[in-house]
Amino acid sequence: MKDILKPIISIEKLQTLSNEAKASILAMTTLAKSGHPGGSMSSLDLLLALYHCINIDPKEPFKHDRDRVVISHGHISPAVYSVLAMRGYFDLYDAITQFRLAGSPFEGHVEPLVPGVEWTTGNLGQGLSAACGFALECRLKSISNHIYCIMGDGEQQKGQISEARRFAVKYGLNNLTAIVDYNKIQICGNVTEIMPQNIKANYESDGWGVIQINGHDYREIFEALNKAQNIDAPVLILAKTIMGKGVSFMENKEKYHGMALTDEELMFAFKDLNYIIESENEKDINKTSPTMPDIMVGKEKKTHTLTEPEYRDNGIMHREKRKSIKENKLFATYNLNPEQYIFDFQVNKEKYYEKSTDNRSAWGDALADIARKNKDTKRNIAVFDCDLMGSVKTSEFNKILPENFFQAGIAEHHTAVCAGAISKYGIQTFFAGFGMFGLTEVYNQHRLNDINFTNLKVVLTHVGLDVGEDGKTHHCVDYIGLVNNMFGFKLIIPADPNQTYKAINYVVNQKGNWLIAMGRSKLDIIRNDNDEVFFGKDYLFEYGKVDVLKDGNAGTLYVTGTLVNTAIKVVKRLSLEGLNLRLVNIPSPLEIDTEEILRAYKTGMIFTLEDHNVKTGLGDLIAQKIVEAIGTQSSKKDTENINPKRNFKLIKFGVENYAFSGSAEDVYKTMGLDEESLIARIKKEF
Amino acid sequence: MKDILKPIISIEKLQTLSNEAKASILAMTTLAKSGHPGGSMSSLDLLLALYHCINIDPKEPFKHDRDRVVISHGHISPAVYSVLAMRGYFDLYDAITQFRLAGSPFEGHVEPLVPGVEWTTGNLGQGLSAACGFALECRLKSISNHIYCIMGDGEQQKGQISEARRFAVKYGLNNLTAIVDYNKIQICGNVTEIMPQNIKANYESDGWGVIQINGHDYREIFEALNKAQNIDAPVLILAKTIMGKGVSFMENKEKYHGMALTDEELMFAFKDLNYIIESENEKDINKTSPTMPDIMVGKEKKTHTLTEPEYRDNGIMHREKRKSIKENKLFATYNLNPEQYIFDFQVNKEKYYEKSTDNRSAWGDALADIARKNKDTKRNIAVFDCDLMGSVKTSEFNKILPENFFQAGIAEHHTAVCAGAISKYGIQTFFAGFGMFGLTEVYNQHRLNDINFTNLKVVLTHVGLDVGEDGKTHHCVDYIGLVNNMFGFKLIIPADPNQTYKAINYVVNQKGNWLIAMGRSKLDIIRNDNDEVFFGKDYLFEYGKVDVLKDGNAGTLYVTGTLVNTAIKVVKRLSLEGLNLRLVNIPSPLEIDTEEILRAYKTGMIFTLEDHNVKTGLGDLIAQKIVEAIGTQSSKKDTENINPKRNFKLIKFGVENYAFSGSAEDVYKTMGLDEESLIARIKKEF
Repeated sequence: MKDILKPIISIEKLQTLSNEAKASILAMTTLAKSGHPGGSMSSLDLLLALYHCINIDPKEPFKHDRDRVVISHGHISPAVYSVLAMRGYFDLYDAITQFRLAGSPFEGHVEPLVPGVEWTTGNLGQGLSAACGFALECRLKSISNHIYCIMGDGEQQKGQISEARRFAVKYGLNNLTAIVDYNKIQICGNVTEIMPQNIKANYESDGWGVIQINGHDYREIFEALNKAQNIDAPVLILAKTIMGKGVSFMENKEKYHGMALTDEELMFAFKDLNYIIESENEKDINKTSPTMPDIMVGKEKKTHTLTEPEYRDNGIMHREKRKSIKENKLFATYNLNPEQYIFDFQVNKEKYYEKSTDNRSAWGDALADIARKNKDTKRNIAVFDCDLMGSVKTSEFNKILPENFFQAGIAEHHTAVCAGAISKYGIQTFFAGFGMFGLTEVYNQHRLNDINFTNLKVVLTHVGLDVGEDGKTHHCVDYIGLVNNMFGFKLIIPADPNQTYKAINYVVNQKGNWLIAMGRSKLDIIRNDNDEVFFGKDYLFEYGKVDVLKDGNAGTLYVTGTLVNTAIKVVKRLSLEGLNLRLVNIPSPLEIDTEEILRAYKTGMIFTLEDHNVKTGLGDLIAQKIVEAIGTQSSKKDTENINPKRNFKLIKFGVENYAFSGSAEDVYKTMGLDEESLIARIKKEF
Repeated sequence: MKDILKPIISIEKLQTLSNEAKASILAMTTLAKSGHPGGSMSSLDLLLALYHCINIDPKEPFKHDRDRVVISHGHISPAVYSVLAMRGYFDLYDAITQFRLAGSPFEGHVEPLVPGVEWTTGNLGQGLSAACGFALECRLKSISNHIYCIMGDGEQQKGQISEARRFAVKYGLNNLTAIVDYNKIQICGNVTEIMPQNIKANYESDGWGVIQINGHDYREIFEALNKAQNIDAPVLILAKTIMGKGVSFMENKEKYHGMALTDEELMFAFKDLNYIIESENEKDINKTSPTMPDIMVGKEKKTHTLTEPEYRDNGIMHREKRKSIKENKLFATYNLNPEQYIFDFQVNKEKYYEKSTDNRSAWGDALADIARKNKDTKRNIAVFDCDLMGSVKTSEFNKILPENFFQAGIAEHHTAVCAGAISKYGIQTFFAGFGMFGLTEVYNQHRLNDINFTNLKVVLTHVGLDVGEDGKTHHCVDYIGLVNNMFGFKLIIPADPNQTYKAINYVVNQKGNWLIAMGRSKLDIIRNDNDEVFFGKDYLFEYGKVDVLKDGNAGTLYVTGTLVNTAIKVVKRLSLEGLNLRLVNIPSPLEIDTEEILRAYKTGMIFTLEDHNVKTGLGDLIAQKIVEAIGTQSSKKDTENINPKRNFKLIKFGVENYAFSGSAEDVYKTMGLDEESLIARIKKEF
């Protein structure tokens, strides 16, 4: 057996550090009057041992070949901050005084604003998926390292973990070791009462190796960590621990899962941890000697006068310090400068289509062309599929770069997080799926990706009623609304195969999180008045730019996505009848220019058309912009300029209820979104 | 062993029906040019056997003590419709001619508009949770029956199923039998390649009994169904089957997972199924005899002239019939009149609070009072918790009605569906959680509940930045936006503990799906100008009604939720400075009266204030209403009436980015939502 991991300090020293760390955990939670001391103390020895033997360098937190640790139960942040500080990542005093202080990096749940933290968690059950993503990232980059994921036992109840387990086995992620802090206590009581679970059997049933240890015995921990590296499978270390370990009255008490100690309790805890109180009041404490059970049942007798405790050693700090940091906004900041990366994929700039096809084929083409053009020089791309590659058009990519393609099966929750994590440090990552599965089912996972500043490109090939026969469960008509609920994601809805191809060329070189949404059906190629391809050879996609497809003065019709084809026909036919609408395609609905909207507003009539919930999509965003535009202008006292030609009206055409299962054509008809219905609905307004 | 289930027809007859059903599966998918024939044929024999031995009555689809079947892999609807028709629920001809026709009940994924279908699915992995819900419903109602859930094998990859498994074991749901159609083929290939999984070991690791059978052998199926009823655990019948079973060229071919046969292939399939083609063209087919492999690789030689097939027996129908149904909108409709129920819980009408408390305590009180008042007479209530009952205040209910309280552990995805299903037939069900876990994580599950017309009341006790120290992962600031993305859910955001108590009294007697959202902090009791409690003894909550908390003419401030307390202080202080704003609380933001908005619009200045994403919450809804109100009026040519006193402006105050972890007070300050900041921001506009 290879004995790969060797602790950098002695076990005796670790034992000393353990008590100091516990004291700091308790100090920071008491000072913040909130936090999770119980689990922090049960996980502590595992963290101490781990961070003292793996390949990390506190002086270079982002060094290329570092081992990675994902903290899945992010609420044990006090333990993580304490251990990272002891390893030299930052000053422990900062963490103690700034824990859960608005503006500081030491948040309630671990944050990558803190050096040494790799991934923000807080929603339970997602850490193992992130660890899988990091393991794949390092494999793609040929980094020889190891990935650790430490989790709580309560969160083993989350289904997503089983998805991650199977993925890890399928992809042979033997560079992955999971650790469960098995303290058997969750918020509402004992895990065996709240939700009985055989964690060992669950992991083994999915093909994992399982090692059971005492999570407070450093020798056992090191032995297990080494053994895990020699097993030909991902390994779980199931570590029996004690909630509140080290403080007698806290041990095995669920109330300390999420409750900070009072000042008085803290003094007793320090004594338990062999922290001698040196304050003047020490005598009083010794004199009164309240028994532990009294404290445990909340019957502390206030017979001594401890009002403002003085903590010693690493615990020496003051409420005043915290107050001063807060008032003067003197929060710690760290130079988080990860491995630099830029995306500079070669793309096929001039390619375009003359003939009708579906947007998803254009996306598949663009992706395959990128793979071909960058095959020899690049390995910083990844594509994820959930058993839909034929429909979502990633099969060709898989043929060209099979090592960069990951088939995760029907396991979208895991996949969304895994794809997010692999993208974080410069792997351009595409997760393609139907709208319902790639976004609606996993909205929360993408929200967490957004918080983690990932570089994920979510490509939805089946959105809207255009999905047709699969029916209401599959009609994703909330993608604009969902993305608009997040703060970082950007959104592109291409109008035809050409704009799709060009948009993919654009996003492949963008950082950050993007959603690209398209319908299922074949679409006509959009052409200008001279019958030339609109998004042709020289067109470059530009985020936020609108496309004026036809001029007119009777009003403006804004449209996005699959229904652009329909809108063109509608506007042409109305034009023959003498009603000249201006037709504008909005491929970036979250980024609409105020001037454009003001221009349309002045015509007095705006229509919006979308294959999306009419309450939360394009029409909604345009309405917001109208109100905003009026407001912006009104402060200028320039009233004539903004008053519309007629009393202003906005008419929104979109999806008004769960729809039927049927051909897209028929379903559009039932919702009044077909050519004939739209012409009638528009004419009614004139 | 009890031999409880006896087939009502002979095995020989079942074998005949099997071929007829397969022919109808193929006919309806070919006619619709879409659908999932492969899995329908592998599941068929299981369905045929099941529906011919369980306690159901096609003449009385909703009979009280019926056994229930949940079809989790909803895409095998052609098989389900065929078997239900053969059992007499409706005319098979309707299903064949109307399958996937927009407007008909025979949707692509099973729909409860079809008699005999209990639950809509389509999103995979959710059926077992629904089955758990039905099992609990029947237990609460003391119905002695059995619940079945038939699933695909690919969907076993979904994590939610593991949550459902553990829940079923914890609650001893021995009246639940699951069946997996183990055809080993999913869309992209063999399940062992797409995502290797040991289904048997997975179920056993969670404490289930597993019986392995041949899913095409009726004797084995009946034996297993009976054996399952005698095992002291929930049981999985793992049934090995053949994708496309019965048609040689379809068997074990993944391409037939989701692809209909061509007309020509259909003829060959009929021959395989011993369906003799009686059309005039039969001779041609026999003459040319293309070999099966030719068809399989898509090389059918078009040497004969079959253009419009004539199907025989149950397959006799025409494209013309389908066309005529579509054109004349002659879709089948069924009298779906389930067991009638009304909610008539006794409530404590006059109770109110004089002293500050948090809304969640008022919710907990209201729920406990309802439990007390209805303890002896009612058992039609259920409350679900995911390991948060202390925080979300359902502990007291648990003490009063422990049998109606379900502790599901940290497993929100399962819980959301299970709680939805138990509510469907008249159990008033509350699922209480933090906003992030009760809604944001499980948005899609609630969307499916909405489609299933459930009676779920989702109570979020921790929404907004008010959640404070737990940080951005826990700040649920998208609940209005998420609910607005659905079409059925209604939303209440009470302003103080009194309105909370009254709102719970109101919703407990409402059908349908409702979201009730509240912050974490203690709130002052709202009082009127005479210092009387605003939502006092005589107040009754009325959905859609706004609460005018103060009159004023300088503009209107609309506010909802936790920040009502702040708004009152802000408006009072501005009033002392001579700026008189009208202050209006909006407890039902999805249902705002147009007249109210028009009135505010005319003052020229509207502010909105919310502890929610400013892009998708109250401000968004008010802006929509403003645009709508202007439009409504503009058609009246009555322009003077609607022009505002000054150039109109809407200013939205809300959450503009992911926020820090800190005390709610501090976090509000960082977002400009505290008293001082708001006063400054408002004054700037005058």
